Amino acid sequence: MIYENNSVKELKIAYVGGGSRGWAWTLMNDLAKTRDMSGTVYLYDIDFKAAQNNEVIGNQFPGDNWNYKAVKAAEEVMTGADFVIVSILPGTFDEMESDVHATEKYGIYQSVGDTAGEGGFFRALRTVPMMREIAANVRRYCPHAWVINYTNPMAVCIGALYREFPEIRAYGCCHEVFGTQSLLSNALEEMEGIADVSRQDIAVNVVGVNHFTWFSSAYYRNKDIFEVYARFIDKYYDSGYSKKGLDHWKKDTFANNARVRMDLFRCFGYIAAAGDRHLAEFMDFEDYLIDCKKWMFGLTPVSWRKENLKERLARSERLLSGEAWTLRESGEEGTLQMRALLGLDTMVTNINMPNRGQISNLPYGAVVECNAVFRDGSLTPVMAGEIPESIYPLISRAGRENEATLDAAFSLDLGYAYEKFAELNMLKSLKTEEKQELFETMYRNTEGYLGVYKK
Amino acid sequence: MIYENNSVKELKIAYVGGGSRGWAWTLMNDLAKTRDMSGTVYLYDIDFKAAQNNEVIGNQFPGDNWNYKAVKAAEEVMTGADFVIVSILPGTFDEMESDVHATEKYGIYQSVGDTAGEGGFFRALRTVPMMREIAANVRRYCPHAWVINYTNPMAVCIGALYREFPEIRAYGCCHEVFGTQSLLSNALEEMEGIADVSRQDIAVNVVGVNHFTWFSSAYYRNKDIFEVYARFIDKYYDSGYSKKGLDHWKKDTFANNARVRMDLFRCFGYIAAAGDRHLAEFMDFEDYLIDCKKWMFGLTPVSWRKENLKERLARSERLLSGEAWTLRESGEEGTLQMRALLGLDTMVTNINMPNRGQISNLPYGAVVECNAVFRDGSLTPVMAGEIPESIYPLISRAGRENEATLDAAFSLDLGYAYEKFAELNMLKSLKTEEKQELFETMYRNTEGYLGVYKK
Amino acid sequence: MIYENNSVKELKIAYVGGGSRGWAWTLMNDLAKTRDMSGTVYLYDIDFKAAQNNEVIGNQFPGDNWNYKAVKAAEEVMTGADFVIVSILPGTFDEMESDVHATEKYGIYQSVGDTAGEGGFFRALRTVPMMREIAANVRRYCPHAWVINYTNPMAVCIGALYREFPEIRAYGCCHEVFGTQSLLSNALEEMEGIADVSRQDIAVNVVGVNHFTWFSSAYYRNKDIFEVYARFIDKYYDSGYSKKGLDHWKKDTFANNARVRMDLFRCFGYIAAAGDRHLAEFMDFEDYLIDCKKWMFGLTPVSWRKENLKERLARSERLLSGEAWTLRESGEEGTLQMRALLGLDTMVTNINMPNRGQISNLPYGAVVECNAVFRDGSLTPVMAGEIPESIYPLISRAGRENEATLDAAFSLDLGYAYEKFAELNMLKSLKTEEKQELFETMYRNTEGYLGVYKK
Amino acid sequence: MIYENNSVKELKIAYVGGGSRGWAWTLMNDLAKTRDMSGTVYLYDIDFKAAQNNEVIGNQFPGDNWNYKAVKAAEEVMTGADFVIVSILPGTFDEMESDVHATEKYGIYQSVGDTAGEGGFFRALRTVPMMREIAANVRRYCPHAWVINYTNPMAVCIGALYREFPEIRAYGCCHEVFGTQSLLSNALEEMEGIADVSRQDIAVNVVGVNHFTWFSSAYYRNKDIFEVYARFIDKYYDSGYSKKGLDHWKKDTFANNARVRMDLFRCFGYIAAAGDRHLAEFMDFEDYLIDCKKWMFGLTPVSWRKENLKERLARSERLLSGEAWTLRESGEEGTLQMRALLGLDTMVTNINMPNRGQISNLPYGAVVECNAVFRDGSLTPVMAGEIPESIYPLISRAGRENEATLDAAFSLDLGYAYEKFAELNMLKSLKTEEKQELFETMYRNTEGYLGVYKK
Repeated sequence: MIYENNSVKELKIAYVGGGSRGWAWTLMNDLAKTRDMSGTVYLYDIDFKAAQNNEVIGNQFPGDNWNYKAVKAAEEVMTGADFVIVSILPGTFDEMESDVHATEKYGIYQSVGDTAGEGGFFRALRTVPMMREIAANVRRYCPHAWVINYTNPMAVCIGALYREFPEIRAYGCCHEVFGTQSLLSNALEEMEGIADVSRQDIAVNVVGVNHFTWFSSAYYRNKDIFEVYARFIDKYYDSGYSKKGLDHWKKDTFANNARVRMDLFRCFGYIAAAGDRHLAEFMDFEDYLIDCKKWMFGLTPVSWRKENLKERLARSERLLSGEAWTLRESGEEGTLQMRALLGLDTMVTNINMPNRGQISNLPYGAVVECNAVFRDGSLTPVMAGEIPESIYPLISRAGRENEATLDAAFSLDLGYAYEKFAELNMLKSLKTEEKQELFETMYRNTEGYLGVYKK
Repeated sequence: MIYENNSVKELKIAYVGGGSRGWAWTLMNDLAKTRDMSGTVYLYDIDFKAAQNNEVIGNQFPGDNWNYKAVKAAEEVMTGADFVIVSILPGTFDEMESDVHATEKYGIYQSVGDTAGEGGFFRALRTVPMMREIAANVRRYCPHAWVINYTNPMAVCIGALYREFPEIRAYGCCHEVFGTQSLLSNALEEMEGIADVSRQDIAVNVVGVNHFTWFSSAYYRNKDIFEVYARFIDKYYDSGYSKKGLDHWKKDTFANNARVRMDLFRCFGYIAAAGDRHLAEFMDFEDYLIDCKKWMFGLTPVSWRKENLKERLARSERLLSGEAWTLRESGEEGTLQMRALLGLDTMVTNINMPNRGQISNLPYGAVVECNAVFRDGSLTPVMAGEIPESIYPLISRAGRENEATLDAAFSLDLGYAYEKFAELNMLKSLKTEEKQELFETMYRNTEGYLGVYKK
Repeated sequence: MIYENNSVKELKIAYVGGGSRGWAWTLMNDLAKTRDMSGTVYLYDIDFKAAQNNEVIGNQFPGDNWNYKAVKAAEEVMTGADFVIVSILPGTFDEMESDVHATEKYGIYQSVGDTAGEGGFFRALRTVPMMREIAANVRRYCPHAWVINYTNPMAVCIGALYREFPEIRAYGCCHEVFGTQSLLSNALEEMEGIADVSRQDIAVNVVGVNHFTWFSSAYYRNKDIFEVYARFIDKYYDSGYSKKGLDHWKKDTFANNARVRMDLFRCFGYIAAAGDRHLAEFMDFEDYLIDCKKWMFGLTPVSWRKENLKERLARSERLLSGEAWTLRESGEEGTLQMRALLGLDTMVTNINMPNRGQISNLPYGAVVECNAVFRDGSLTPVMAGEIPESIYPLISRAGRENEATLDAAFSLDLGYAYEKFAELNMLKSLKTEEKQELFETMYRNTEGYLGVYKK
Repeated sequence: MIYENNSVKELKIAYVGGGSRGWAWTLMNDLAKTRDMSGTVYLYDIDFKAAQNNEVIGNQFPGDNWNYKAVKAAEEVMTGADFVIVSILPGTFDEMESDVHATEKYGIYQSVGDTAGEGGFFRALRTVPMMREIAANVRRYCPHAWVINYTNPMAVCIGALYREFPEIRAYGCCHEVFGTQSLLSNALEEMEGIADVSRQDIAVNVVGVNHFTWFSSAYYRNKDIFEVYARFIDKYYDSGYSKKGLDHWKKDTFANNARVRMDLFRCFGYIAAAGDRHLAEFMDFEDYLIDCKKWMFGLTPVSWRKENLKERLARSERLLSGEAWTLRESGEEGTLQMRALLGLDTMVTNINMPNRGQISNLPYGAVVECNAVFRDGSLTPVMAGEIPESIYPLISRAGRENEATLDAAFSLDLGYAYEKFAELNMLKSLKTEEKQELFETMYRNTEGYLGVYKK
C-alpha cells in the first residue's frame, strides 16, 4: 500500500466468500463511499461463478477507487493482502434447515440456529475446518494481514482462527450491539426528551460472548442510562417497543419488540445487547422460544432464507445486467475499522477476540466480545472488567459451550463431538437416546460437509 | 452540571494546591481556551494567600466562562465537585534540597529527585499522608468526582489515593511521554522525510511506571517506527539530537540531547519514553548520573528551582497587578480529558492507574502507566499487554520500589520506613551505617513534615 | 528456636487474646500432646487478669514441654515470636447481643451474626482497628513470624492484617469445613458401606469465602463422592441426618441435621461445606433463617453464649483450683500446621488468605478460603481454580461484602460505613429510613468500641 | 481397578514406548517394589519386537503383582487404562546425531540437544505429531486416564498433548530437579555440619520451564538455604564440587561439578536447578558450551548414546535369557505419584503442566514446571508465584521458544517452521543464509520422520 496526501492507495483486500449476495455488496457500498482508501478487492469463493458475478457487479459500483477481481487460487488471493475479509456460508440452506429445524420434533425450537445450541454446534462442525484452512493460508501467504470475520458462529470461528494460527491478527465484527444502542437512544428520547442521539454517542461497556453481549454500563454524556432504561421498561414492558410499529415484528422476521431484552433487564439488572432472537437462544427461560409470539418476536424459518435467497439471486442478475446501485448508509463499521487500522482515524468499538484478560473473570482464551481501540497498526481490547455476578452463570456457560464446540470440531472425532453435543444446555430435557438419535440425524443431514470427521 | 447545546455549564472543579504559580496558570490557560465547558474552579491551598492571589489572577484571564474562588474549608471545596485536581508541593524547596542533594556526599547524584530513589522516597513520606487526607475528603464529600493528580511521586500518589479509598475515580496525568513522541516525529522527518507529523499521530503502546515508561510498539500509519528510530540513532548517537541546538541542554536544565534514550534503545530494543533526566534515575548505569555531561543532560539543582520560584512569584505579582495573560498552546491534556469524560469527545492517551491486568506480567495493584480510553463517564485502560522481557527486570524493580515506598508511608512507622529505604537500588553501594546516617539526616532535614510518623 | 533430634525447642508463641476460656485451653491441650515442639507461650489480653489465670492453668497442663507467661507489653509479647496466635473477642457479649438481635424487630434473623450481614458488619467495625494494631505490632516486633488468626469475621480480619502490613505471613484457620468432610464420610458408610473413613482422607477442593466454603470436587480414593452424596441426599433430604440423633439439634445450638446443606446441593450441584447455621446467613432463601425449625437448626441466641460463659468461667475457677485437665483429641489443626511450617511434616489443608490467583474468577486481593501446602518455612495456596458457575453469584457477593466491610472499617468514617452497611444483601427488604435507624441503633449499642470512627 | 484392604488391584497401565531398554525397566523395578498396587502393564511400541521382549523381561521381574503384555493395537492398549505412560524416542539416534551435531560446523555446540535450541526444535518437529496421535487416542479410548510423560522435549510434548486434547489429565515428570536438591543437601553438610538430609526434605519452590528450572526459595526446616549455598559457592566456585570426585565428570558424560549452577547463582541470585549440561543450553554465556571443560562438564556426543545403546541391547538379551534383575532404589517418583493419585498417599513434587496462573508473570498456557499436590483423584499445581526479576528474561525467552516450536510443529508447514527456527536465540550469531542452510540440512537428515510437513 502507499500513503499519499492523507489517503492510502493500492490496498489489497482478500475477500473469502466473495461470491456472497449480501455482505459483499454492503462492503462494495461502504468501500465506494470511502474517500481516502483505494485498491483492489480479490474475490474468492468455492462458487467461482458467484465470485465472477461479483467482480462484474463490483466494478460497476459508483466511484472508481476500487477494483474487483475474482480469482481461483488461495495463494493469489492472499499473497500480499493487507486485509482478509471472511464471510462464508458453511454449506447451503439445506444444511441450515437441518441445523434449525431438526430439533423441533423434540419440542426444541431455535430462532436463528447459527450461534449456540444444536444448530450452532453443527454449523460449527462444518465451518471450523474451513476456518482452519483460511488461517493456514493466512499463515502461509499474508501472516501480517488483518483478518476480519463476519461468519457465524462468530466466537467459534474466531477461536478456530487463533487455535490454528496463534499469531493471526483476526477479530470478529458483529452489528448486533448497535440495535440496543439505538434502543437506548430511543429511551433517552421517550423518557428524557433528548432526541437524535446517535447510537455511537451512547458509550457502553460491552461484555459477554457474541450474540449474548451485555452492557455493564451505559452513559450518554454524564447520564447513567440504566436508570432511564428502567423507567422506559416500566412504561413499555407489556406493549413492547418498536419505532416501526408494534406489529412490525410479525412482518419482518428479524424484527422484535425488545420484550426479551426488557425482561432480561428486570431479571438481571444489566442490559442485554443483542437482538431478542439471539438472546432467547442462550436462556433457560424456554418460553422465550416456545412461546415467542407472547414475547413478540418470530423464529426465522430456513424456508424464509431460501425465499430470500431467490430474491437476492434475482437482484444479482439485475445488477449484472447493469442496474445501478444507489449508495446508502449501511450502518456497518468494517471500512471504518480498516481506516483506523491504517492510521486514518482512531475508533473505539466492540469486537470479538480471545480473552487475554480483558474480561477478568472469564477463562483465558475463550472468545469474548468487548470494546477495543483501533489505531495505526494496532487493535487493542480495553479492560472491560468483570462479568457482573447476576449474569455470570449464563455468560460463563455460553463461553464454555463455545470452547467445547471448538474442542469437538478440532478433534475431528465424531464420538468426541457427540459427547460435547450431548452436554449442550439446550438439549438438557432430552433423554440420552433422543440425543443420540438427534445427533445421528443432524449428522446424516449434513454429512456431505463433514467428511473430514472420523467415526 | 448542565448540558446545553453540546456544551456543559456550571461545572465545579476543586483544585487542591490551587495556590500554585505554574500548573494553576496552565490550567487557567487551557480552561480559557475551551469553548464548550464553563463553571467555577475552587482554589484550595495550605497557603491561602496564594490561593486568593490565584483567584484574582484567574478571574482576570481572557474569556468569561470560568470563575475562580479561593476557599478555606475542604468541605466547601469538595462538596459537589465534578473534578478534583491535585497539584501540590509536599513541603518547600528546602525539603526538596534535602531530597535531591543529601546523598551527594556519598557520591550518589539525582537529576530530579522527585520520583524514585532516596529523593522520591522522602518526598513520598511527606506526600502520602496529604494524599490520604485528600482521598478521605473525596470519599466524604464527592465520592463520584474524577480526581486528576499531577503531584509527584506520581505512582506513589496514585497508589495512596486508591489504598485510602479503593472506589476513588482517580488517575495520574503526566506529559513526559509526549517528548518522546515528538522525538519519533523528528526521526520520521530526519530519516523518512515525513514532516509535520504531530506527536498525537504517533500511535504508541505505553508500558511501565511513571517517568520510566516505554513504548513496546510505535506506529505512524502502517509504518513501524522502531526501524526508523534505529537508523535515526545510528546517525545521532554520538552527537545527540535536539531541535533547539546541541548545546541547548547546557542552558535549559530540563533539556537534553536524548542520548540516554538512544543508549537505552540500543541496550534493550525498546523505546524509553520519558526525559533523559528521569530515565537516568532508574538505571544501574551509574555514569548516566555521575557523568551526565557526557550524556548531555544536566542535574537539576534545587537552587535553580529556588531561583525559578522567585521569577514565578514576580510574575504572580505582575499578573495580580493586571498584566494580561496571552493564551498559548500548553501542550497539556487535562482539559481535553475532562471534555472526554463529560462525553464531548473520545480520547485515547496514557495515564497512571493501579494495575488490574492492563499490564499482564506486573503485579496486580501496582500503579502502572499505559493508555486508556476516555469517554462519557468512563475511563478504561486498554490491555497494554506484557512488559517485554529485556526491560522487565528494570520496570519490575521500579514498580516494586514504589509499592515498598507506599508500604513505608502507610505504616507511619519510621523503623519500617528505614528498612524499605535501605533496600532502594539507588543506595546499593552504601554500607549499612551510611544508609542509617543518610536516613537520619534526610529525616532531620524534613522532620517538620513527618510529625505523623512514629519513631 | 533450636532444632535438636528432630524436634524444635525454645519456640516462642505470642497469643493475642490469651485470656480466652476456650481456644486457649484447646491450644494448651494440643500443644501438650505435641511430642516434638516445646517452648513458651506468651499470653496477652486486654483482660490481664484472665491472661494471668491462663498462665496458671497452662502451667498446670499435663506435660512439661511448654511454659505459659502472661505479659502486659505488646513489645515483650511479640519480640522474637515465631508464631503469633490471634483469638480475640471484639467487645463483650453485650455488643454481640446487639449484633445478632438488633435486626429482629425488622423481621431479620441471624443464626450466628459474627461473619456476614449486619452482625458481622458491626463486629468488623470493632475488630478491624484491633487487627490493624496487631499487624502494626507484628511489623514492628516480629515481621517474619507466622500469624494464625481464629477471630471472626475471619475473612475481614485476614484482610485487615494484610492491608495494614502487606508482607505479613498471616492466615486464617477455621474448622467449619471438617464437619462436612465428616458428613461425606458418613455418606460413604451409609450408601457404600465404606466405614471408618477419617475426614482427612476425603480429598476436597475447597473454594469460597470463610463460612461460605464449597467443595468443587471431593474424592475418596478414586471415587467421586458427588454421586454418592446425591444418593445420600435422596435418602435423607426429608428427615435430615445426624449421627447424634435427629433431635440433637434441638438440644445443641451448634448442631443441625444438614438439611440446608442438602438443599444447597440440590439447588446448585456443589457441596456447601460449612455448618448450616453459617450457610443460611449467606443465602437469599430467607426461610432458612425465618423458618429454621423446618430446616432443623437453631439460631444461636447471645443469651446462650452468656450462660455458656458462666460455665466457662466456673471451669476456669476449677482449673485454677487445680482440677486436672484430661488431654483429648481436639480436632483442631493449629499445632499440626505449626509443625509443618517448622519442617517437621508436610500438610495440605484449607486456610484463609488474600486471593493471588488461587481462585481464578474472584477478584485479586479478596480473602478466600482454599487449600494450601504447609512445609518448611512456607505456606503456599494451591491453584483451587474457578468458582463454579452456579454458585458464583453467591460467593462473589459474599466476597464483595467482605471487601466493602473492610473499606468501611478502614475509612474510620461513619458516614461511609453507613453507605456500605446499607448495601448489605441481608438488609435488602428494609426501607432507607429503617436502615438508617438500624445503623444508628447498632452504633449506639456498641459505641464504646467505636470511638475511633469519625462521625 | 479395585480397592481392597488399602491396596489397589487390577490397575491397567498403558505404556507407550514400552519397548524401551531404560525407562521401561526402571518402571518395572519401581512397580515391583510397590506393595499396594497390582495389575497389568500393556506395552505398546512401534518396534513391536522390543515390546515383546519387555513383556518377557517384565514378567520375569521379582514379585508377582504385575503382569506385562505387549500389544499391537492402540485401542487395546488404551481402552480402560488408568494410567498412560509415554516414553518414546522420536526417531533413532541417527536423527539425534543430526539434532546435536549439525550445528557444530557453524561453531554452535549443544550439550544435550533434546530440549531447546536447534536440536530440541527438530526433535520437537518429529515428536509433536506422535504426541498428537497419543492424545487423540487418549481422547478416544481413555479420556479420564492420567497421562505421565517422560519424553523430551518435555515442555513441548506436554503442550502438544494439551493442544490436541485440552481436557487431558497429563503432566510431565522429570528428575533433573532432584540433583540440585541433593547438591543443597551436600551444602548443608559441608557448611553447617548437618548430615544425611534427604533431598526430599529440602523444601524448594520450583519455577521455570523444564530443564531450566530454578528454586525461588529453599528451606530446610526453618533454615533459608540461600545463605548456606552462597557460602558453599564461595568455597567451591573455583574447584567445582562433586561427591564422586572432581574428575568424575571427565568419565561420566552426565556428570558435572556444578560450576555452571554456582556461576548462575552468583549472576542472578537464585538457584538454577537442573544439571549443568541442560542449563548451559539456555544461556547467552556461550563459553559454557564452547569452553565446557573450563566449566567442568562435557557435551554428550550421540556416538556415546549409540555405544550405550549397544550395551543396553546386550543387557536386554541377557535379561531375556533369564538374568535376574536386582531391585534397586531408582530415585524416580512415577510410581509414588500413581499411588498418591489413587489416594494411597499425599505427595508434593514438581511437575510440568500448562500455566493456569501458578506462575503469575508467565503467559497463560505456556508449559511450566512447578510444584503440585498429588491426592486422591486430583493433581493441583501450587501457586508458585512470580519468576524473580533477574531471571525473568531468560525463563520468559525459554518459554516463548517452546511455544513457538509448538506453533511450528502444529502448523505442519515447513515454511512457517523455518521462520520459528530462524528466531531461536541459539542461532543468533548465524547469517540468514546459514540459518537456511542449517534448516535445510537438518530437515534432509531427518526427513524420514517429517513426511507430514507441507513444503
